[in-house]
Amino acid sequence: MKRIYEEVREPGGKEFRVPIGISNRHVHLDRADMDALFGPGSELTPIKDLGQPGQYACDEVVTLKGPKGELKKVRVLGPLRKETQIEISITDGFALGIKGVPVRESGKLDGTPGIEIIGPKGTVVKNQGVIVALRHIHMLPSDAEKLGLKDKEIVSVVFGDATRGSIMDEVLMRVTDTSGLEIHIDMEEANTVGAKNGDTVAILRCAVNE
Amino acid sequence: MKRIYEEVREPGGKEFRVPIGISNRHVHLDRADMDALFGPGSELTPIKDLGQPGQYACDEVVTLKGPKGELKKVRVLGPLRKETQIEISITDGFALGIKGVPVRESGKLDGTPGIEIIGPKGTVVKNQGVIVALRHIHMLPSDAEKLGLKDKEIVSVVFGDATRGSIMDEVLMRVTDTSGLEIHIDMEEANTVGAKNGDTVAILRCAVNE
Repeated sequence: MKRIYEEVREPGGKEFRVPIGISNRHVHLDRADMDALFGPGSELTPIKDLGQPGQYACDEVVTLKGPKGELKKVRVLGPLRKETQIEISITDGFALGIKGVPVRESGKLDGTPGIEIIGPKGTVVKNQGVIVALRHIHMLPSDAEKLGLKDKEIVSVVFGDATRGSIMDEVLMRVTDTSGLEIHIDMEEANTVGAKNGDTVAILRCAVNE
Repeated sequence: MKRIYEEVREPGGKEFRVPIGISNRHVHLDRADMDALFGPGSELTPIKDLGQPGQYACDEVVTLKGPKGELKKVRVLGPLRKETQIEISITDGFALGIKGVPVRESGKLDGTPGIEIIGPKGTVVKNQGVIVALRHIHMLPSDAEKLGLKDKEIVSVVFGDATRGSIMDEVLMRVTDTSGLEIHIDMEEANTVGAKNGDTVAILRCAVNE
């Protein structure tokens, strides 16, 4: 078996680097769950802008409760969404007692496990919505075109840490008009490859895999 | 930049696979700390053999206490060692409030952080001994010779998971007469690459890295 990876560069060979954004466990809420957890008509309180334009961390936190344990002070991210989504790590799943949480693209919640969410004004029991986020790169169409990359394409990235250097395959490209250039990985992934927020990676294509 | 990885195979091209052993947080104790934590002259109680001959998980557990938090029911592994060593994940380090736990080879404890260990009969405060284990492969000299690998050599391995496929670089070869063939990675590393206990990996050499 041989694998040949080639770095994806701009025309003329100029390096192209993608900043790393590390996601800790968090929750996106829909209007109904916001009402139930924080009170009817309540609004999110933005405290910090995130890498994706219009997305922000909120002052609001909730407790996640599973069959085996709880995770407290889990951050809510805004704005509200069409459907509540709970993003945790695989280790979090063990701690909660929720087995087999699937690695999924955001928004693809069919058949995912449920969970209890506890807020200051109430509790909701979700029948689905818990995922481990599939690692992905947010990119503008102009950058993607320059690099010859397409939305939904699967790429690899390289982390050059001295003791935990790695290549991650199976990284999903998400090319949209509202993207801020960023690769999103979760805390476990970041720890495994020695990555810190604000570090950057090169994109690789696996040219030969035999 | 280009990277070419070639699979390490036996003479004649036969595939060589290495079973994965996933390490959860654990503690190795020296005689003095065993006395202090479990009582003078106390002995470890083996409950499960590990992949390395003569090594075993014990019935004994301890609590690890750091500036910010505790981890309870942390397994002691036997037999006793020359020096107490505490192996945790980077996430565990955050939970305990111990910053910058180094990724280290087993036994190389100079300058590592300390911790409080609490047992049923007493407490010890260690000035050093906390590490995140450097990922490594245990192999017998006969296998290493067959594959053309050396003790202390750094290799790569490939994990073929469908959603979290990865290559880990910086994997240390540990070739000794008492090895059971096994790659040791921690829980975060396993989660990041979709690995389960008993899965196997191929060893790769990075042939070109330019």
